[in-house]
Amino acid sequence: MLQEISHNQPEEHGGNIYRLAEELHIPERNVTDFSSLVNPLRVSKKIRAELRKNLKYLHNYPDPDAKRVRKRLAQYHGIDMETILCGNGSTGLIYLITRTLQPQRVLLPAPTFSEYERAISVAGNKERRAQVEYILLKREQKFRINPDEYTAVLQKGACSSLPFDMVFLCNPNNPTGMLMKKDAVLQIADAARETKSYLIVDEAYIDFCSDESVIKNIERNPYLIVLRSLSSFYALSGIRIGYGVFPEHLLAGLKEQRVPWDVNSLSQRAAVIALKDKVFRRESLKVIAEEKRFLEKNFRKMGIEFFAPDAHFYLVKMDNADEICRQLRNRGVLAMNCKNFRGLDSSYMRISVKSHKENTMLIKMLALILNRKRATA
Amino acid sequence: MLQEISHNQPEEHGGNIYRLAEELHIPERNVTDFSSLVNPLRVSKKIRAELRKNLKYLHNYPDPDAKRVRKRLAQYHGIDMETILCGNGSTGLIYLITRTLQPQRVLLPAPTFSEYERAISVAGNKERRAQVEYILLKREQKFRINPDEYTAVLQKGACSSLPFDMVFLCNPNNPTGMLMKKDAVLQIADAARETKSYLIVDEAYIDFCSDESVIKNIERNPYLIVLRSLSSFYALSGIRIGYGVFPEHLLAGLKEQRVPWDVNSLSQRAAVIALKDKVFRRESLKVIAEEKRFLEKNFRKMGIEFFAPDAHFYLVKMDNADEICRQLRNRGVLAMNCKNFRGLDSSYMRISVKSHKENTMLIKMLALILNRKRATA
Repeated sequence: MLQEISHNQPEEHGGNIYRLAEELHIPERNVTDFSSLVNPLRVSKKIRAELRKNLKYLHNYPDPDAKRVRKRLAQYHGIDMETILCGNGSTGLIYLITRTLQPQRVLLPAPTFSEYERAISVAGNKERRAQVEYILLKREQKFRINPDEYTAVLQKGACSSLPFDMVFLCNPNNPTGMLMKKDAVLQIADAARETKSYLIVDEAYIDFCSDESVIKNIERNPYLIVLRSLSSFYALSGIRIGYGVFPEHLLAGLKEQRVPWDVNSLSQRAAVIALKDKVFRRESLKVIAEEKRFLEKNFRKMGIEFFAPDAHFYLVKMDNADEICRQLRNRGVLAMNCKNFRGLDSSYMRISVKSHKENTMLIKMLALILNRKRATA
Repeated sequence: MLQEISHNQPEEHGGNIYRLAEELHIPERNVTDFSSLVNPLRVSKKIRAELRKNLKYLHNYPDPDAKRVRKRLAQYHGIDMETILCGNGSTGLIYLITRTLQPQRVLLPAPTFSEYERAISVAGNKERRAQVEYILLKREQKFRINPDEYTAVLQKGACSSLPFDMVFLCNPNNPTGMLMKKDAVLQIADAARETKSYLIVDEAYIDFCSDESVIKNIERNPYLIVLRSLSSFYALSGIRIGYGVFPEHLLAGLKEQRVPWDVNSLSQRAAVIALKDKVFRRESLKVIAEEKRFLEKNFRKMGIEFFAPDAHFYLVKMDNADEICRQLRNRGVLAMNCKNFRGLDSSYMRISVKSHKENTMLIKMLALILNRKRATA
């Protein structure tokens, strides 16, 4: 289903613990944040030790080429380091892409990460903003993306006077946590190549899922771009680092548009250490799997509808999700209110998996709120 | 003197210790960097302690509003916090400004910081790039900026079919280190207001000089913007934080163009601590003054021509500066080769003031290179 949109304000982002702490007059550390999508294991000891060692070198500018990180990433993925660019989180790269390519007509799924729309809406010349169209994902299909529908819309667009020149796919998608299989993504990538639309596959959260990455397919498709994040899985949200893998012909233009020194030196050090740490990766996935079982068991017990995700966060449907988010907020707990996500409404919220202690607290709090509601109903 | 230019590549930036370390196969810590303009006292112990404490909170996103920093800055300068925006170094804010305002005709001094030209050249629509014109600063006038000349050029421009809509002033200027008096800056600011050109006064290095800041004059002039850096004086180049003070009517547009979370959480913590630290400021200025005396005495002894700066770096003129930079490089020492600065040539280099040990080493090395040259001449 296709829907043309006007440029509206993006939803309130998750993770603003500062505003809530100020509202409630509590220290930030007393806010529990289920709204941001960060690894519940937090920053590893190894990374913290490395950063501590490097605090005395903060007078040095960061390496503008992030060469050591890119070399390590190239080894890690088995790809050419020249095709990799680092950025201030994968979000920084989204803005770099829209600024550089200045698309005219863009296709997005709905719901999805709101920064795509925002980045498109501020790119390029004020007088020539892109048209954005949406493929609405349906609750009945568990918000799964249908590659056939995508392909058909792209091909139909190619016959119009203004073909799509950019398409975004968030895989796993945010806020649904749903992962597309590699084959399905590649089907859309083939259609994008045929119709000369740049397909940006945002794999910011794919480290939390089984490996369906298309990062190695860049070299075979000059219209495919893959974005990844290290901030989320390695819990580096505070210093942020992401990377993108790009077809060769786009690199010069992207480098020209980069703001110098946008990847700080600590996040570069952290990334190098992170990529070596197999133990942290294994342990993270184990803990998250356990906690997902715990949360799902309790969601079922409480009759809370959720859409079993591949990633580490839940899109949850409750009649009064909006009100529940507010009540959680009053108790110092942030959940992502999804009412402003295009394609969702005030009956949806997004909850990320956190530590067992925090998840237990959330479940108790939800039970309390729901029981009180039932009692007063 | 006015000169129209084409958009060329910016000069090689200072501070790339990584590339030199790789070339010479030495560790980065063995490179001595006189090319970047950082406080020789490096990061204070207080800041390092604060950052160490905060490493465990890296899983939290940074405050997107940098509220605590802005509140502290407002107190520090006695200005309204709502007029302050933080950025990824003052350089990040230069790009934000050109992206938001998309100027059509810009006036710059030459020589000056090359990122102005680069930021202008990549702003806005590919098909509509700004015209840039230069006022050449002259050696005979010690590269000092003449406010009367600026005013005259602005006023003449205002009568043309395409008036200047943006003007940059770097105060103290880079690479000359020359500071304009507040009255002179305000004279240009008045002309900018009259001619409706945004005047961006980049005070990134003014903390190293006597106080000629116009930061408090924003509220009286809707065409005045002031940029400041905390990275340089507080030696935070690796994590970078700068700020700008803007007229109120520009704030909404700038906020719309910001890339989210572009000021990391550690630099925000560091900034708050830095602004409280009077002792560090006093000690820094004392050490720099001593080292400037030491360097100048030795420059004179060796017959090296320099332009006595107000800031903590020297524009130095030697017939063979280009060659000397190369010889220093071979010894693991970075100086800023100024041959690609518009308005300079291969007889100029820029040297920043460092610790006494490092400055002594530089002087010895220069003496060695110069003596060898004289011996072979």
